[in-house]
Amino acid sequence: MATSTVSEELFSIVKEGTVTSPKGFEAGGFHAGLKRKRKDLGWIKSVVPANAAGVFTMNTFQAPPLKVTKESLVDGKLQGLIVNSGNANAFTGKKGLEDAYEMRKQFATVMGLKETETAVTSTGVIGEYLPMEAISKGIHDIPNYKAKASGADFAEAIVTTDTITKQVAVTCEINGKTVTIGGAAKGSGMIKPNMATMLAFVTTDAEVENNALQSALSSVTDTTYNMITVDGETSTNDMVLLLANGQAENEELSENHPEWQTFLSSLEYVCQQLAKLIAKDGEGATKLVEVHVKGAKTEKGAKAIAKSVVGSSLVKTAIYGTDANWGRIVCAIGYSGESVQEDSLSISLGPIKVVDYGMTTEFSEEEAKTYLENENIHISIDLHNGYEEATAWGCDLSYDYVRINASYRT
Amino acid sequence: MATSTVSEELFSIVKEGTVTSPKGFEAGGFHAGLKRKRKDLGWIKSVVPANAAGVFTMNTFQAPPLKVTKESLVDGKLQGLIVNSGNANAFTGKKGLEDAYEMRKQFATVMGLKETETAVTSTGVIGEYLPMEAISKGIHDIPNYKAKASGADFAEAIVTTDTITKQVAVTCEINGKTVTIGGAAKGSGMIKPNMATMLAFVTTDAEVENNALQSALSSVTDTTYNMITVDGETSTNDMVLLLANGQAENEELSENHPEWQTFLSSLEYVCQQLAKLIAKDGEGATKLVEVHVKGAKTEKGAKAIAKSVVGSSLVKTAIYGTDANWGRIVCAIGYSGESVQEDSLSISLGPIKVVDYGMTTEFSEEEAKTYLENENIHISIDLHNGYEEATAWGCDLSYDYVRINASYRT
Repeated sequence: MATSTVSEELFSIVKEGTVTSPKGFEAGGFHAGLKRKRKDLGWIKSVVPANAAGVFTMNTFQAPPLKVTKESLVDGKLQGLIVNSGNANAFTGKKGLEDAYEMRKQFATVMGLKETETAVTSTGVIGEYLPMEAISKGIHDIPNYKAKASGADFAEAIVTTDTITKQVAVTCEINGKTVTIGGAAKGSGMIKPNMATMLAFVTTDAEVENNALQSALSSVTDTTYNMITVDGETSTNDMVLLLANGQAENEELSENHPEWQTFLSSLEYVCQQLAKLIAKDGEGATKLVEVHVKGAKTEKGAKAIAKSVVGSSLVKTAIYGTDANWGRIVCAIGYSGESVQEDSLSISLGPIKVVDYGMTTEFSEEEAKTYLENENIHISIDLHNGYEEATAWGCDLSYDYVRINASYRT
Repeated sequence: MATSTVSEELFSIVKEGTVTSPKGFEAGGFHAGLKRKRKDLGWIKSVVPANAAGVFTMNTFQAPPLKVTKESLVDGKLQGLIVNSGNANAFTGKKGLEDAYEMRKQFATVMGLKETETAVTSTGVIGEYLPMEAISKGIHDIPNYKAKASGADFAEAIVTTDTITKQVAVTCEINGKTVTIGGAAKGSGMIKPNMATMLAFVTTDAEVENNALQSALSSVTDTTYNMITVDGETSTNDMVLLLANGQAENEELSENHPEWQTFLSSLEYVCQQLAKLIAKDGEGATKLVEVHVKGAKTEKGAKAIAKSVVGSSLVKTAIYGTDANWGRIVCAIGYSGESVQEDSLSISLGPIKVVDYGMTTEFSEEEAKTYLENENIHISIDLHNGYEEATAWGCDLSYDYVRINASYRT
């Protein structure tokens, strides 16, 4: 469990930043034939083996590529990774595992990498075998596409029904050297209406000690990727990878380094931006919803309440309908599992206080409705019961969520 | 935690049965002015004080009427209860509690009951004070309506946007005497689009020892009301009450009575039918979905998996769209928190096996689509890992769920 550390004065945002913004990374993506037309095979390669960290889905059915990637991560080094969209290679048994190994092997061979320093990722339909012929042809085509490859192509190749690509990069100073962190992600979407998967890939040219790198990733995942929800579903393929290749030539970072907080804050910002983009681009979403809970006795309690409210179907439909239905927020707080005093609870929708110490205010429904027409909705909850806080992100629940997920697979 | 005990040979279903099918109960309902036109005030009275049991929402913000009813239940006796729909009297603070006491007092006075043997229940919009003038006038009108009052009127008066009333009754034999159990419930619906509340009221003329009655209600609640989900929301007002007035003149029942299982099975059937009616009539629902899990190591695990699958938004939308998307079922099993072996997992949609020991079968998509056009969908999951089982009920997720819950309060 970790507290948010984002301090915006510690880093600068890179315009059109992406996974290749940090030194010593190249990336690309193109159409290999898994999807009908759009890009479906993406790759990243570091100039040298990078220290690497990963976090993986809690779903008990972890897809074969996750098993293979975890193996590659055992020694804490990755130099390259390959991602296909269009097929999740999940619930595919022994053959699925063989395919994932084969995909890793071929990519490593073509790119001149060690297999044990190569990660492999898939997203898309579940329960179907990878079309290995297309994958194999695609991998062997990478050198042909390499001249005009870009991080933006990679970001395009990893999405499924996402409506936008999700990329960000920042720079910060670590003992006088400029360190860059870049990231790309995909969110909840279906190639056929099937499995929603969250993937994120973060690169940095920082030199970071391996254990510190993993602990940093685990810690920021707690306050970013683990604080978003679209529909409460945890995919078999969710994964976040972080590669740090040391090309910035800073002194090695670890928890004891005086500028560790600068690195951590920058990393968290990158992950938070990717997480927010995923939430905002949730299936059928028309709005980004941010729920901030403060005045909690414990951070765990604050998180539970924030996630309960942002995940409530009734709150989500009310926001879609621009209905200032604060009773649903109260209800979701009430079933979060955390004990809360009714008469110390305050709730605001943006600037409009709707509940003040347990009493409904005489707020203007019309004004609240106007506020809820914004694209970014901020719900703040004060429990007046302690000093801990947490933020969660999600989206509204619209007709389009049903349409996207109910239509017959074609 | 309790295992299901329903044995259909132990009881008979009463045609058009309701809460007044057992001897010594009268009930009614009429329009008192909380809703625009429909019935909104219901009551039940037993000829003598009945042994009584209750189960209450786990939501931390229990509404004032629940607090008052719990007080009445302290000595295990109830002779009457009053329910209003249209206003939940929830999150209404000190005044709400005073109103609930006042409502109980007035009803007790008019009906000649002890306040401490009277229960009070509310369902509807949250965060607004009860319109006490209408409630009070309604209570004083009960004697005028009494001649033509009926259990069916009661069932009508407790609903909100339910599309059907929910009633059932059965008879069984206990040492040669006919014992009747009746029930009425309301499900997830809004009077204004606000709080979904589940209420159930069960009456019986059986003589049942008080502790055994509470333990029976808690036990069947675990396998019935606690195994349904519409949208994963737990209301501030959920409540189930059971009154046993002894008018059947059987020997007092308790866990040691040789025919205890007959009573328990009959009671569970009544509660299961009400629970299934609530699930089937969930907001916007077009289908009842039943998920049966067997071959589990523990009953807790079986329940967790059944509820995870039946509550998954992606499974629910797939069923609405008649899409045999078994990957979503696998995914929901995978994040239920229970450990399951991929290669021992089998899944059927009705008669169609779609996964057999971890392998997808060559089932006909067309046949599966036709099966999913039924109104009652049965998903069975075999973990091949033990001898425990569980069943959960829910409904599909349709455009109408969004429409009902997104429209602005009027």
